[in-house]
Amino acid sequence: MKSILVIGAGRSSTVLIDYLIDCCNKKGWSFILADLDLKLAQSKVAGKESVQAVQLDLSDKKKLSELISASDIVISMVPAHMHVMVASICLEYSKNLITASYVSDEMMAFDEKVKEKGLIFLNECGLDPGLDHMSAMKVIDEIKSDSKNELTAFETFTGGLLSEDTERNNPWKYKFTWNPRNVVMAGTGTVKFIQEGKYKFIPYHRLFRRTEIIEVPDHGYFEGYANRDSLKYLDIYGLRDIKTLYRGTLRRPGFCRAWDAFVQLGATDDSYQMEGVEKMTHREFINSFLAYNPTDSVELKLAHYLRIDLDSEVMHKFKWLDMFQDTPVGLQKGTPAQILEHILKKKWTMDQDDNDRIVMVHKFRYTAGNTDHGIDSFMVIEGDDSERTAMAKTVGLPLGIAAEMILEGKIKSKGVVRPVKKDVYLPILGQLENMGVVFKEYKFQPQEN
Amino acid sequence: MKSILVIGAGRSSTVLIDYLIDCCNKKGWSFILADLDLKLAQSKVAGKESVQAVQLDLSDKKKLSELISASDIVISMVPAHMHVMVASICLEYSKNLITASYVSDEMMAFDEKVKEKGLIFLNECGLDPGLDHMSAMKVIDEIKSDSKNELTAFETFTGGLLSEDTERNNPWKYKFTWNPRNVVMAGTGTVKFIQEGKYKFIPYHRLFRRTEIIEVPDHGYFEGYANRDSLKYLDIYGLRDIKTLYRGTLRRPGFCRAWDAFVQLGATDDSYQMEGVEKMTHREFINSFLAYNPTDSVELKLAHYLRIDLDSEVMHKFKWLDMFQDTPVGLQKGTPAQILEHILKKKWTMDQDDNDRIVMVHKFRYTAGNTDHGIDSFMVIEGDDSERTAMAKTVGLPLGIAAEMILEGKIKSKGVVRPVKKDVYLPILGQLENMGVVFKEYKFQPQEN
Repeated sequence: MKSILVIGAGRSSTVLIDYLIDCCNKKGWSFILADLDLKLAQSKVAGKESVQAVQLDLSDKKKLSELISASDIVISMVPAHMHVMVASICLEYSKNLITASYVSDEMMAFDEKVKEKGLIFLNECGLDPGLDHMSAMKVIDEIKSDSKNELTAFETFTGGLLSEDTERNNPWKYKFTWNPRNVVMAGTGTVKFIQEGKYKFIPYHRLFRRTEIIEVPDHGYFEGYANRDSLKYLDIYGLRDIKTLYRGTLRRPGFCRAWDAFVQLGATDDSYQMEGVEKMTHREFINSFLAYNPTDSVELKLAHYLRIDLDSEVMHKFKWLDMFQDTPVGLQKGTPAQILEHILKKKWTMDQDDNDRIVMVHKFRYTAGNTDHGIDSFMVIEGDDSERTAMAKTVGLPLGIAAEMILEGKIKSKGVVRPVKKDVYLPILGQLENMGVVFKEYKFQPQEN
Repeated sequence: MKSILVIGAGRSSTVLIDYLIDCCNKKGWSFILADLDLKLAQSKVAGKESVQAVQLDLSDKKKLSELISASDIVISMVPAHMHVMVASICLEYSKNLITASYVSDEMMAFDEKVKEKGLIFLNECGLDPGLDHMSAMKVIDEIKSDSKNELTAFETFTGGLLSEDTERNNPWKYKFTWNPRNVVMAGTGTVKFIQEGKYKFIPYHRLFRRTEIIEVPDHGYFEGYANRDSLKYLDIYGLRDIKTLYRGTLRRPGFCRAWDAFVQLGATDDSYQMEGVEKMTHREFINSFLAYNPTDSVELKLAHYLRIDLDSEVMHKFKWLDMFQDTPVGLQKGTPAQILEHILKKKWTMDQDDNDRIVMVHKFRYTAGNTDHGIDSFMVIEGDDSERTAMAKTVGLPLGIAAEMILEGKIKSKGVVRPVKKDVYLPILGQLENMGVVFKEYKFQPQEN
């Protein structure tokens, strides 16, 4: 009897756990869910057969080793920096491992030994990274399978957004559906990509004004801004000769222009502690980035600083966030980024009946002889409720399906890998389609513009 | 017979060396100049009596210890990170030390032991830091000496600029007169100051558009932009209750607006290596920060990016630097900041007959009862030639005079200190006046504006 161990029963694990319990029931496998919070783990498996919830403190290496040694495959949902510790025990007991996190250098260092033992440590197997790799590589490999074709451009965008009902009456059309800190810090550093064979760089303070409008059939318009480093995907995707490679993030139109106001103020800076935070109000937070004036209002100073009208959309979005109110921030100390995150959470936290939506877009351009071809590929997934969110589905299902396919011997790759090879992504994408995670493809011949 | 040791015979030491040789000749003291480059050291003392030039490799601790143990005071002109090593030997042999560098935590850690031995390690005793501390504290202490006075505002600006003859026909009215890298990196990070009792923060990408115009009598107009952290001077100058404290850098009007174009492009970013540097031209360097377009010119794309006219002053300044030329950069690799520095050096390197100019401005505001008072203080020093530059004079003379005053017992402070106390700055400022380094003070009653 095969056995699956999931470490971590947090909110993002619900869909994964349900999928695996269902799978284990059908196949007669056993399933163990381990978490520091035993009650949480128990609640996730309540009423299900042949499953076990156990309490696990990750600093208890003995218990962790016992659990791993008794399983056939481990899905690690722990914080990213702890995967290496879990991986080293998996290696010791010759167990397969799956994570949704980026491959770290330390993880990659296991590669040779993992191969020697005939194991697979499959990483980046959630949504982004994960589903983005798989769905993109499927089309890339299809295009490349005809030697006459030459792939010239690949642009890809993913957004964790709100369902149409939830985004109504929210001028930002946005709330935090994942890690708020990552949203506040998004794009810090320098953005790098390649366009028409030229390396291009965008400094952070210009990023949110260099957006691209993207139409998704049946879902309207979105805007995309560039992710930090697209260049590393030249190697990961085997695209060293491509002329354009661009990875981006999706928001609803108007978001980036308003977010840029925070960037222009310096309100996303995480490099220093502000002064007088314990007494600071929302209004004073904004004012601390604007020039002193004994009489001018914060509103007028901001509008002038940004060269926008007082009745503009950006000002409206700021007002909706209560940014000009004399509401206490409610922190004792913090960097500008920490304070901004704290203020945003007051309006951008998901309510019980709010639902999220994941949108992923790939745009491929290639030539076959003298003709240009295009393939656009779209995936839109909506959340069912506050547990079965679109995020939980698109992160959890690839992980769960990967575990199933590895245990059934349908994935043959060995070593520390990402899901960029056919033998990994094909079985996973096939089962994802059965579960309703579908990409719609549109083939066309691009017109000169 | 007293003996002075100067370590470092570089370009910035010429005025210092000449002053000390003159001083030692008058007083019958001995003078030793040590440098890795013996010929350089010999050239600096050629034809002078009772002076000695010696070869010194700083890694030769034995030789260094011999030289220090034979002297009464050491002036360390070595790179800032090596002062601590020199200081530890000075402490071992109970010798006084002077540097022009910022007090590091490691240097401050010597304080107690330096006091125990009755020594002084006087740091920040050049131009900036140095002369700025002394000249500011003199006025601050004068204002505070009357208990009715309350100091409300202190703004101070320093600029290393060009003489009027040299700046002619240079639209930037600027060349590198000191460390070019520091000029390219100026202001990176977040600027902090206090204005009318409010803490204010300016993000880097807005810094060069928040300038202040300053008139210097007989020298016309300058513009000032804020230095990184003015807040630490609240303690150094003992000004915890002041409402406005602002430290800045001076340029000629128009410089900052044009420099901001480099900032907006991301051309001062030092955080990543660019691609294809070995084949890059000036024009391609600029283009790599602008959006791809198959036909638009780099000039038009830049003007549009900055929302400026093609015939504007900023475009003219860029053209004068050959920024749009297909001239090879001439580097094998580099960050944007390193490449920009390399390109700028082609036009911003001082010619043999160019002269520099140092401008320092202090603005004090205080109240006495119900009346407002102001004191503005200005210093302008021009270079004589390529050796006796304004920079070399204003760095070298405070150091040399400090050594003289310590040896003559006119400075009594002990420990690791900055020249912010009367007993240190008064004798130095007195002798600086004799050498022509003079501040002109204007007292007035400010008008409401």
